[in-house]
Amino acid sequence: MEKIEEHRCFGGLMQRWRHPSTTLGCPMTFSLFLPPARESAPPLLWWLSGLTCNDENFTTKAGAQRMAAELGIALIMPDTSPRGESIPNDASYDLGQGAGFYLNASEPPWASHYRMYDYLRDELPALVNSHFTFSGKQAIAGHSMGGHGALIMALKNPGRFCSVSAFAPIVNPCQVPWGQKAFSAYLGADETTWREWDSCELLANAPDEARLPMLVDQGDADTFLAEQLQPAQLAEAARSRDWPLELRIQHGYDHSYYFIASFIEEHLRFHAGYLFK
Amino acid sequence: MEKIEEHRCFGGLMQRWRHPSTTLGCPMTFSLFLPPARESAPPLLWWLSGLTCNDENFTTKAGAQRMAAELGIALIMPDTSPRGESIPNDASYDLGQGAGFYLNASEPPWASHYRMYDYLRDELPALVNSHFTFSGKQAIAGHSMGGHGALIMALKNPGRFCSVSAFAPIVNPCQVPWGQKAFSAYLGADETTWREWDSCELLANAPDEARLPMLVDQGDADTFLAEQLQPAQLAEAARSRDWPLELRIQHGYDHSYYFIASFIEEHLRFHAGYLFK
Repeated sequence: MEKIEEHRCFGGLMQRWRHPSTTLGCPMTFSLFLPPARESAPPLLWWLSGLTCNDENFTTKAGAQRMAAELGIALIMPDTSPRGESIPNDASYDLGQGAGFYLNASEPPWASHYRMYDYLRDELPALVNSHFTFSGKQAIAGHSMGGHGALIMALKNPGRFCSVSAFAPIVNPCQVPWGQKAFSAYLGADETTWREWDSCELLANAPDEARLPMLVDQGDADTFLAEQLQPAQLAEAARSRDWPLELRIQHGYDHSYYFIASFIEEHLRFHAGYLFK
Repeated sequence: MEKIEEHRCFGGLMQRWRHPSTTLGCPMTFSLFLPPARESAPPLLWWLSGLTCNDENFTTKAGAQRMAAELGIALIMPDTSPRGESIPNDASYDLGQGAGFYLNASEPPWASHYRMYDYLRDELPALVNSHFTFSGKQAIAGHSMGGHGALIMALKNPGRFCSVSAFAPIVNPCQVPWGQKAFSAYLGADETTWREWDSCELLANAPDEARLPMLVDQGDADTFLAEQLQPAQLAEAARSRDWPLELRIQHGYDHSYYFIASFIEEHLRFHAGYLFK
């Protein structure tokens, strides 16, 4: 593992690391924010980004380090897919590199490299825990495709995360164009296999021990709201299970990082309430 | 004047505008943050960016909107030079487009378009004041080449700005490689003409009515510190005039926007102390 960048930031350290990934079969880069040192090791918040993003979008644009430094939370920002000339890709922005959808692909040509779920569930946590000391408490959050990623990671791994939050997540990929395109390519035509990567399906069928606090913010000026996002589907699934989801509609906000920056402090404070419990 | 982007941000509006500039002879773009409306119109803080930047670097990376919204300060982020295929340029990053140095060039091929000083002193203020209502109180700040720009704008226009601040400014361009290269090209070989664009020279010779509060932050891990920045030269000039400059050396910080993000709240609070006086 090689450190490729380091900057002092709000008294902590903003770092970028590169490492070979055996799961994905290519070199991968992630960003890490370490808050100013305290007596005890910090908890860790995972941030999963959206379509076209890499580890730097949230890092440079969300302004999360200020509150992470104040609260004493470490942040880890992985990339959104395997990368490289030898990695299968697609000319569109919503498939292939930059659009891994946080799942394990089963179909050619994707299956050999597109295993972001295993990478984030097993390989990257093992790697960072062998290099850094965290408190052991973890939370997860993300934006759009990364909101989908955060929700499925939390729902599929009961007990691993204290809390989950998302900005404008794709909650019901089986039913919207982004998800249908990606799942058809990565998972094939049998839609029954899609359900295990769909937050609404997962939540409806989750065991009680998977329950955890969920916060979702959605801007009502988001141009993807009606066609791709449909947070009401998740709210309905949560209501039917009496699940602790808070869905907030934020008036006038769009799908951009200006929206994320405006509310990231509230998300960090939400997670802190569980990470330090 | 055409609005090309608008996003809700911290309850205010982040906008991007394009307009034809008669001073520069090309279309220009600037960004503007309007804080949430209050009973009285907001004061205006000008932000001048550094080499290679345009109006978006500070806008997306500094996280300034949060505190600007809280304090009720509007922010304007101009571009750093004229732009376009018909505008003279240079292959290097520190001359030509993206490197206007906030002066009026006298030498060919630059003189016809590179007049950022006049653009920022006259044309752009007149334009924005005809479209928006501000309180009339203004402050100015910048980074690196833009720190130089903020300091010379304040020193050359007594009474216009309530306060000035800078991150890692080029304070003595006559004596450092970045300044010598740019001034040779834009202003010619006669170094006596350079002095009116050099903060140390301007401060040493400023009339008493030009005095205004100055805050300068400089990281001691900034790789440009010794060769290009030398803030001690400005501190020495200020000391000899008993000028109200606070120069702060910030341990471990570099030249990046992570440095700016870490201290922008303190700069905004510094300016607010004068903008609302």
